Amino acid sequence: MSHSCVILYKSGRDKEARELFESVRKHLKVIDVQELSCQRVEKACDFALVVGGDGTVLRAVKCVSVPIVGFKAGRIGFLTAYRVEEAERFLEDLRNGNLVREDRWMLKVTVDQKEYEAVNDVILRAKAKPMSEFRVFIDGCSDLDFFADGILVSTPTGSTAYNLSLGGAIVIPSCDVVQIMPVAPYYLQNRSIVLPATKIIRISSQLESELVIDGVCVGTTREILVNKSDKTFSLLRPAGYDFFSVLKSKVGYGRSVNES
Amino acid sequence: MSHSCVILYKSGRDKEARELFESVRKHLKVIDVQELSCQRVEKACDFALVVGGDGTVLRAVKCVSVPIVGFKAGRIGFLTAYRVEEAERFLEDLRNGNLVREDRWMLKVTVDQKEYEAVNDVILRAKAKPMSEFRVFIDGCSDLDFFADGILVSTPTGSTAYNLSLGGAIVIPSCDVVQIMPVAPYYLQNRSIVLPATKIIRISSQLESELVIDGVCVGTTREILVNKSDKTFSLLRPAGYDFFSVLKSKVGYGRSVNES
Repeated sequence: MSHSCVILYKSGRDKEARELFESVRKHLKVIDVQELSCQRVEKACDFALVVGGDGTVLRAVKCVSVPIVGFKAGRIGFLTAYRVEEAERFLEDLRNGNLVREDRWMLKVTVDQKEYEAVNDVILRAKAKPMSEFRVFIDGCSDLDFFADGILVSTPTGSTAYNLSLGGAIVIPSCDVVQIMPVAPYYLQNRSIVLPATKIIRISSQLESELVIDGVCVGTTREILVNKSDKTFSLLRPAGYDFFSVLKSKVGYGRSVNES
Repeated sequence: MSHSCVILYKSGRDKEARELFESVRKHLKVIDVQELSCQRVEKACDFALVVGGDGTVLRAVKCVSVPIVGFKAGRIGFLTAYRVEEAERFLEDLRNGNLVREDRWMLKVTVDQKEYEAVNDVILRAKAKPMSEFRVFIDGCSDLDFFADGILVSTPTGSTAYNLSLGGAIVIPSCDVVQIMPVAPYYLQNRSIVLPATKIIRISSQLESELVIDGVCVGTTREILVNKSDKTFSLLRPAGYDFFSVLKSKVGYGRSVNES
């Protein structure tokens, strides 16, 4: 019995999505091909083929409940295991049982009565002026103070995203920890702190600040609560495409001197 | 019934040890007062009072099986909850049930047929020349390459020791992760990588390298195996002396702008 799927593509990638559709249609039951929007895609299928970059996969996570296979049509692919022109290789991996399902967890961000899910990270960032005084409370009591542009909390999945640009540590996806990183801190405190994912983190800002979830500003506030969400998502990737091989090929971390 | 203890002190701190002995002798049964050496201290007692700095506690961990209370007579006290002159405060905390027992785990380092335990960290460091090519294997398959002075693997306890000097992340003690940090890497790879503590890490060096366990060079080799040890140790500390308060007071991380 053949598998069923939907194809979701980033705006402007309709040509690549059509190419992918043509390549897989003989082997997979393609229920639908559609441009990714903010709306849920509730079609019953086995997985979603997502055409775009890591950012597209990030958004797709919030629209589907099935495992995602990322097809790269952008830069840097931690979440996209195949390039668009590699449909044949994907079909072969599927036939040979060479696909690994990897479950990833998200952060729940609570502000006032509203809840958001973050796949990569959440930032509380000073809005009117570049800097603000931030306080970070861990499980309600321990507190850390930062005078900074903002405070970033990232999942292991997000550790290789904006956290990496800020100088944070690389966290492999199977770690059950979150990382807190001040954004442009004034007092030489540009180190991250790694905590068990079970901790409840409260971040307050002296000034009204932007709340940025996975790179998208969703509003302004002075205080947020961050903890591990019950929600997970899953990625399908070929067995050989592990985190370390991506680290080396995409970011150059741990790459041999002798490799070009 | 009064508790029993031994007092162990760093070489040169006999005066402070005597002071501590005089302060606690009326309230505790002091089995022995002795200078800390490399030898096991097998006296039956409830805990060991250790006089010195964090380095002294590190060494004491390997000599006793009972919980340790550190009395600071050095700089920076992540493992020393009291100053030597605070014996009275310690006795009060003991009387009031205000002491928290914290269990910490260690790394097991295997080289040839020998095994070592590391409380903070282990470094494989190029010996004859400053730099070497290092390969790091995770669970036997994934590998990362570094051209560097050495490779450091640290426990959460060790994350605020040499790892901090190298630019690594601060890891709170209850996280079940290890951190790998290249020492002076050439190819801009001065970021750490955080892994589940269950991983087996093999580090090999192209050149004969020094094996440094908790700051002490124990020999030379080209390859080591590092994984989580079954051995643990425990610290007794007052409830208020948590990791975050030490971070702020000792390292200045997360300290308020308004605090002096």
